[in-house]
Amino acid sequence: MKKALAFDIGGTKIYSAIIDEEGNISSDIDKFSTPKTLDGIKNLLKEQIDKYENQVDAIAIATAGAVNNSNSAVIGSTGNLVQGYSKLDFQSLSNKRVFLENDANAAAWAEYKIGSSKGSSVSVMLTLGTGVGGGIIINDKLLKGKSGAAGEMHFKMYADKRRQCTCGSWDCFEIYASGTALKIDAEEMLNDKNVTTYDVINGVKQGNKKMTDVLNKWQNDIIIGIEGLVNIFDPDCIVLSGSMAQFVDNKKVEREVNSDIVTTPTKILTATAGNYAGMIGVTLLALSQEI
Amino acid sequence: MKKALAFDIGGTKIYSAIIDEEGNISSDIDKFSTPKTLDGIKNLLKEQIDKYENQVDAIAIATAGAVNNSNSAVIGSTGNLVQGYSKLDFQSLSNKRVFLENDANAAAWAEYKIGSSKGSSVSVMLTLGTGVGGGIIINDKLLKGKSGAAGEMHFKMYADKRRQCTCGSWDCFEIYASGTALKIDAEEMLNDKNVTTYDVINGVKQGNKKMTDVLNKWQNDIIIGIEGLVNIFDPDCIVLSGSMAQFVDNKKVEREVNSDIVTTPTKILTATAGNYAGMIGVTLLALSQEI
Repeated sequence: MKKALAFDIGGTKIYSAIIDEEGNISSDIDKFSTPKTLDGIKNLLKEQIDKYENQVDAIAIATAGAVNNSNSAVIGSTGNLVQGYSKLDFQSLSNKRVFLENDANAAAWAEYKIGSSKGSSVSVMLTLGTGVGGGIIINDKLLKGKSGAAGEMHFKMYADKRRQCTCGSWDCFEIYASGTALKIDAEEMLNDKNVTTYDVINGVKQGNKKMTDVLNKWQNDIIIGIEGLVNIFDPDCIVLSGSMAQFVDNKKVEREVNSDIVTTPTKILTATAGNYAGMIGVTLLALSQEI
Repeated sequence: MKKALAFDIGGTKIYSAIIDEEGNISSDIDKFSTPKTLDGIKNLLKEQIDKYENQVDAIAIATAGAVNNSNSAVIGSTGNLVQGYSKLDFQSLSNKRVFLENDANAAAWAEYKIGSSKGSSVSVMLTLGTGVGGGIIINDKLLKGKSGAAGEMHFKMYADKRRQCTCGSWDCFEIYASGTALKIDAEEMLNDKNVTTYDVINGVKQGNKKMTDVLNKWQNDIIIGIEGLVNIFDPDCIVLSGSMAQFVDNKKVEREVNSDIVTTPTKILTATAGNYAGMIGVTLLALSQEI
């Protein structure tokens, strides 16, 4: 059975494991803090690759940032990765093929192959974490766009500049549907700069009305965003993943979305491929190619 | 050379012509008012088909409403077509294959094959008329979604219910970017229920500041909507068609969109396949299939 040495490179952590072509993790999972310099990242990857590459058929890297259509390079640095990251020559790190994909795309692919959206030819995955990631599958292929950068959940929720997004623009879905957004909602609705996401979640558990209103407002914005995506894509399902997905009431979202769209009913599902979906997805993509 | 008898079925007019596999119109164009009953529409189509079907290889119908993925039936009636339209058995009207596609999708396909977006593997066409139509091409295929209903430009421009859309929901792109929207903008900004789209356009031509502000507001909403689409699809281009497209300053929109997106620069183009793009596009689709 074919195997890959998989990585998941994020702004704060890098994970690494050996994964087979069926998506099974067949080694320990190594975990590192993301080095603060480009050389630091390069050396870390190189060390892992030198250690394991003779056991695998390919190197498969899920990474923050957009990945080009030949899956060989990062085309745009994201804010939380070191400067110059997009210039890193990944292929130089190994004699085996080095295959990259954006982390949200890779996770969406894992859901499609072995997780919640298996068998769905059209699906949209939203990763609700500190930010919001997107991975879109259409006719059993990842939506990549002309350069590989597609699937960015930076469509607008307002046209009159209310809340600045982390991307620099205004009112993107990301800044209304992320964990960061829930904190901003709470700050605005409770007029309290120190309230945390934890306060909201904990308050809701204790039946606090104000905190419940905050969570409902946040969830309503997610509904508004999903409605737009369902009208654009007419998907079989919307998959929610990431640390914030557990706070979404899927049944309620599904009911409200389906009562307000002009296309046909969709399902709202929670991701099931797990915390290492990014590494699994990029491995399945890499090993399905001719190597 | 293969030919089709093409129709364009809209809420107010039905057009018909013979078109060849290269998109050339090789007959007069017949034009009818859309009958007010289902039988009326059926009889009109049947008469035209009886008259011309022995000269063609297929019947190709661009129609309002969503068309299923096997291109055989309309799956959702639109507001401006007669009740029961989706139950019309189009195939029963001819012994030749009857091939249907949504009118906006068909027009987008014509642009892609012979018009402004020729050679662009990823493009989004927006038809700015009384309403807003959408046709999306990804990797050289129309985006149809699970049922055929994809490409509806009913994503939200506000999350707090300001303006009701013709679809029944609130604040869809359509109700901020259409001709109807320009009239609503003028009514709201000038506090005058009787102002018309013509008044705005005419005022702008005469250098009227207030009318120019109205048009700029309308165009800014189009920019906001396009930015979301560009971040989602990373397209080669956005094609603007329809009667309102002539009032959009493409260069300005392109500049503003490209300065505000997280993906890669796109082009804003005006459609060039002409008023019969729907009939041409559906013909090209129909004749490219095995018949």
